[in-house]
Amino acid sequence: TRPLTVIAGPCQLENLDHALMIARAMKEACARYGAQFIFKGSFDKANRTSVSGKRGLGIDEGLRVMEAVKAELDVPVLTDIHNEAQCAPVAEVCDVLQIPAFLCRQTDLLVAAGKTGAVINIKKGQFLAPWDMANVVAKVESTGNTRILLTERGTSFGYNTLVADMRSLPQMAATGYPVVMDATHSVQQPGGMGGSSGGQREFAPVMARAAVAIGVAAVFIETHEAPDTAPSDGPNMIPLDQMPDLVQTLMEFDRLAKAHPLKL
Amino acid sequence: TRPLTVIAGPCQLENLDHALMIARAMKEACARYGAQFIFKGSFDKANRTSVSGKRGLGIDEGLRVMEAVKAELDVPVLTDIHNEAQCAPVAEVCDVLQIPAFLCRQTDLLVAAGKTGAVINIKKGQFLAPWDMANVVAKVESTGNTRILLTERGTSFGYNTLVADMRSLPQMAATGYPVVMDATHSVQQPGGMGGSSGGQREFAPVMARAAVAIGVAAVFIETHEAPDTAPSDGPNMIPLDQMPDLVQTLMEFDRLAKAHPLKL
Amino acid sequence: TRPLTVIAGPCQLENLDHALMIARAMKEACARYGAQFIFKGSFDKANRTSVSGKRGLGIDEGLRVMEAVKAELDVPVLTDIHNEAQCAPVAEVCDVLQIPAFLCRQTDLLVAAGKTGAVINIKKGQFLAPWDMANVVAKVESTGNTRILLTERGTSFGYNTLVADMRSLPQMAATGYPVVMDATHSVQQPGGMGGSSGGQREFAPVMARAAVAIGVAAVFIETHEAPDTAPSDGPNMIPLDQMPDLVQTLMEFDRLAKAHPLKL
Amino acid sequence: TRPLTVIAGPCQLENLDHALMIARAMKEACARYGAQFIFKGSFDKANRTSVSGKRGLGIDEGLRVMEAVKAELDVPVLTDIHNEAQCAPVAEVCDVLQIPAFLCRQTDLLVAAGKTGAVINIKKGQFLAPWDMANVVAKVESTGNTRILLTERGTSFGYNTLVADMRSLPQMAATGYPVVMDATHSVQQPGGMGGSSGGQREFAPVMARAAVAIGVAAVFIETHEAPDTAPSDGPNMIPLDQMPDLVQTLMEFDRLAKAHPLKL
Repeated sequence: TRPLTVIAGPCQLENLDHALMIARAMKEACARYGAQFIFKGSFDKANRTSVSGKRGLGIDEGLRVMEAVKAELDVPVLTDIHNEAQCAPVAEVCDVLQIPAFLCRQTDLLVAAGKTGAVINIKKGQFLAPWDMANVVAKVESTGNTRILLTERGTSFGYNTLVADMRSLPQMAATGYPVVMDATHSVQQPGGMGGSSGGQREFAPVMARAAVAIGVAAVFIETHEAPDTAPSDGPNMIPLDQMPDLVQTLMEFDRLAKAHPLKL
Repeated sequence: TRPLTVIAGPCQLENLDHALMIARAMKEACARYGAQFIFKGSFDKANRTSVSGKRGLGIDEGLRVMEAVKAELDVPVLTDIHNEAQCAPVAEVCDVLQIPAFLCRQTDLLVAAGKTGAVINIKKGQFLAPWDMANVVAKVESTGNTRILLTERGTSFGYNTLVADMRSLPQMAATGYPVVMDATHSVQQPGGMGGSSGGQREFAPVMARAAVAIGVAAVFIETHEAPDTAPSDGPNMIPLDQMPDLVQTLMEFDRLAKAHPLKL
Repeated sequence: TRPLTVIAGPCQLENLDHALMIARAMKEACARYGAQFIFKGSFDKANRTSVSGKRGLGIDEGLRVMEAVKAELDVPVLTDIHNEAQCAPVAEVCDVLQIPAFLCRQTDLLVAAGKTGAVINIKKGQFLAPWDMANVVAKVESTGNTRILLTERGTSFGYNTLVADMRSLPQMAATGYPVVMDATHSVQQPGGMGGSSGGQREFAPVMARAAVAIGVAAVFIETHEAPDTAPSDGPNMIPLDQMPDLVQTLMEFDRLAKAHPLKL
Repeated sequence: TRPLTVIAGPCQLENLDHALMIARAMKEACARYGAQFIFKGSFDKANRTSVSGKRGLGIDEGLRVMEAVKAELDVPVLTDIHNEAQCAPVAEVCDVLQIPAFLCRQTDLLVAAGKTGAVINIKKGQFLAPWDMANVVAKVESTGNTRILLTERGTSFGYNTLVADMRSLPQMAATGYPVVMDATHSVQQPGGMGGSSGGQREFAPVMARAAVAIGVAAVFIETHEAPDTAPSDGPNMIPLDQMPDLVQTLMEFDRLAKAHPLKL
């Protein structure tokens, strides 16, 4: 079993300098403490709460940023795609294509993503049971692609709140694919601020640590140097300057968890 | 206030004869009891539980069927769309474009649909609070289109089950737009049968009647002459031969409800 | 099938004059519109959110009030009991003993209540599925008492909110016992105001009407002449002066529902 | 900060030999790995799913067993109480009085328990938000007793299932009182087997480990040498022979967690 992978970056790509700044800081922190690192950034926020929420750089500019981050820092990069047409061009640049939670049952998108041969990270819909992901996985597998990651990002729990069910991690792992804990989206409060989503940033490290102790393959964490002024998802992002300490602690839990794998 | 509209039809369009058979039966039942009628049918089931679930006729053949139903029976028709490219061609044929629940926050789809000028029926996501629909509505309104319907189709409630919260109906009505109760999908049990969704067909009339008593503008009901052999959603569809009695009873409740509008 | 029974009264008994005032107003409204009436009042609020919430008159004074209401107005009366010792003395005065939702699995309480021979109204716990009530019912039936009512009062739905699942009404009716809709507690927001529970009074008539349309045997409604100053449950009680109109409308829906019983 | 406390024992006390056998095994395992140990056993299962479920030894015999376990093994003991009258006699024998989840808002019970001066372990109701426990705590504090523990045992999540929200642990810790994770009840499936509750025993170590990583003061684990034939709660108890390894691993996580306390 490999050490923990940390998938981290800003919610949305803002510009190249900003992406490089965050990627560099995270690469360094992960290298220092022995974590694998994948840089995450979105070129389009396609399902903002409000029509006036900032959408992002767009696919062309976004991919240029991703390409430059890869070239400059030699790190794998991940972004989310929203329709079939985006799959091929994104896969030319990015190592991991991410299926957004709301879209995790859209057959054509899963198949188009799978066909690229890239790694596909599927976020479990807030409306799905962990065992339902077996059917989702089969859609990607139907393309012959078995480079799949499954991400827990919280489940609907009443209105405007999610709950992260820790049973979901071993249940999804039963598919045989690596499981990722999305520590920052699982503490989101969708629509909780009226025109935008709220979040409980303070609990993101709680979620990350619990999941790492259980033995997940990776954690997914959105981070920003100034979350409160970030263009999206500020309420649940972890400040960048807290990330090195967090990575250090998570790696200690990771070593202990992997030395004592849970048998289910 | 107008009498109840009944949006009804099979889950998926199977062929022209089948569509005509159901549309004719429903048109007749609605006319007899004073309901307005809109024929519903899907040309693509884009988010089936399983990759091997039947997808449907496809857009070209599906629109030909819809066109023929309109021409033959002179009834308005509704279908659901899954990406921006489908909006314009579908709007040339169909009176109502429906936004699927999983896609109800996809800004581009809402905007593309709105721009057609057609009536847009937005299904509330299983992961959304009723008041969150104000933000969804604003995305369509941003195109200048205010011909909007809002549909309750159940909210995530634990795993593999939905619950229909009756408070949602007046809460969505506070937007000023007509509210539709989807009586058959709100009793669906998503993923409840492993490779497909289960359903509790027996409770669909319960949901319809409760909502009509509260005073909704429309009910949405999927129906089939033989639900158990239907290509999709059989477990929650109402047998076609039970529809005339159901419409008759609902119209009695509708008259009473509209004579005593609930003040909130 | 008998016409609708209306179980109504204040959340807590305040004094004899107050009880008589409400009981008289409700008796008159129910008589005018053809409903059966049961007067409800609590002598002890044993599970207030806060230790400083008002508890009520106590059992001795409370039973004196109930006895006087019965003597003066000749109406059946209902109150809730909280331990085994209360069952026998309460049953000497009250026609219906009510098991609070939190206590609906306490075997000794159910058995002690059942042994009195009084009618037992069991509120379904916020943590129970409708079908779980079959086991609860069996505890009372074990005493030979089959005079049982089952009440829906909402189910936990995330934090600080309940949802009333309309499927619960026919599901509990499958036990063969009359089903009651508690229209005011199912719109309660437990703990929602920090030191006390909130409520959405405006939706209580929505719940009542939906349930009556489905065909319940009774509705349970707490009412007060000035809910905002009531010692408990003000946020979800219906003002007394709105009750006659509500009863009138509900009776119209009741007649229609009972003329068209739902077959499940 | 002290090392982890393990509260463990059978669901119900069966007889003295059985209690001694389990208590001895757990005392030894805890001593070996540095955990504090509290022996848990119930003398009455007062809210069994079914009226025919075994209730237990009763208070007199149960307290004799507890007294003998204390005398023989010199370990603190915990049991749950169900009404006010039980508080004083139980407190003469037991170190910790436990308030069952369903009863956690019963003011009189909390006050009677508090007055004994014993440690009071309050299980959070399946219907309560973590922050609602501040009001529950105040009821015990009103007696001057501040020896309080707060236990997470899962929250209602749809029907027949619970979810353990890890945010609850730091949220309840904000009261200032030690927080306990009940690893075996939080994987219970209430009523899930028709006439009895089901459970997902395999996930109990997952819950325990996640909570210990977050830094809880104690875990609560029911255990039995042969869970499948235990008189109650078999489906979610951990086999006794697996407990030493589990305690060993949990203590490693505990040391790491307490060396890196989460700041919230």
